[in-house]
Amino acid sequence: MKSNLDGFINFITEVDKLKNIERKTLTYDGKRHENSAEHSWHLALAVLVFAENANEKIDVLKCLKMSLLHDLVEIYAGDQIIYAEDKNKFTRELSAAKKIFSLLPKHLEEEFLELWVEFEKKETPESKFVGSLDRFLPLRSNILNKGYTWEKHKITVDQVYKLNQSAIKDGCDNLWEKTDEFLKDSIAKVT
Amino acid sequence: MKSNLDGFINFITEVDKLKNIERKTLTYDGKRHENSAEHSWHLALAVLVFAENANEKIDVLKCLKMSLLHDLVEIYAGDQIIYAEDKNKFTRELSAAKKIFSLLPKHLEEEFLELWVEFEKKETPESKFVGSLDRFLPLRSNILNKGYTWEKHKITVDQVYKLNQSAIKDGCDNLWEKTDEFLKDSIAKVT
Repeated sequence: MKSNLDGFINFITEVDKLKNIERKTLTYDGKRHENSAEHSWHLALAVLVFAENANEKIDVLKCLKMSLLHDLVEIYAGDQIIYAEDKNKFTRELSAAKKIFSLLPKHLEEEFLELWVEFEKKETPESKFVGSLDRFLPLRSNILNKGYTWEKHKITVDQVYKLNQSAIKDGCDNLWEKTDEFLKDSIAKVT
Repeated sequence: MKSNLDGFINFITEVDKLKNIERKTLTYDGKRHENSAEHSWHLALAVLVFAENANEKIDVLKCLKMSLLHDLVEIYAGDQIIYAEDKNKFTRELSAAKKIFSLLPKHLEEEFLELWVEFEKKETPESKFVGSLDRFLPLRSNILNKGYTWEKHKITVDQVYKLNQSAIKDGCDNLWEKTDEFLKDSIAKVT
């Protein structure tokens, strides 16, 4: 199969824009906001290192694909804080997913769209595991940076637990135990 | 295997520093220099999309691991332009690789170090294929940005061909054909 070269080049050129999508989260040194491209790398590397701790048996290759693709929709739909209530988010992002993946040959377009939808639904072992790390990484940034995002967006401790506890536990029980320790330690310091 | 949690957290916290390693290459829109973390994401995604075009049969999971890990040494050893002649580069980077991977449990430390060395040596189908994309991506940036890096560091057309032609051809013949077209087109515009 020696083809698809133009589709590849168009896609890889377009996705470069993810480097300009600023997230709410700071880099761990607190110097600047991270972007969605470097976050996606961080997530994929976390999958690789932490795979043996997943609650269920997972297909690591599938997890890596999900990690690399999961935020591409933000090129057209933007980044949104997880605490926002937005009923149209999925519809808007699905339309963005269809747009970006349409640059690819048909078989990849279909595979990537299915993987993106699977990740969003969080019903399979892979999507739950990647989802747990996707919550843990920014939470770790907030722990290291005195709750920067929570402070800035007036997020309460209850909201932090509500949005993260089941999402992290669903993919990785023992990662939640550690996260809970971090949170309790942080709360003790400010109260 | 429910353990290794502290090693994972130390490692994932330390590697966040890769987001601060600035490369010589510009983002494709030319607005700023890219960093090595977002470049590693771009490379892994390129592997995923372009795998079926590799010269030889490749293990995609292994290629993704190499892509995600290949630049971690820069956290301690810095980024260097590929045109620089530096006989001590491998020794310096090997020492950096040992340092960063030592944060991990033994089995991962060994696996990642072996993958990093394999990538550097470019003797296997996977390292050659990832290596070809690792050359293509910054070259595409230079094509889109009027040879920014080449101009700034006084790199000649001969040097561009010498450093990239065999490296790209070794992993992916038809990608080199396209790259050669891009280069010839760029040269025609400035001469």
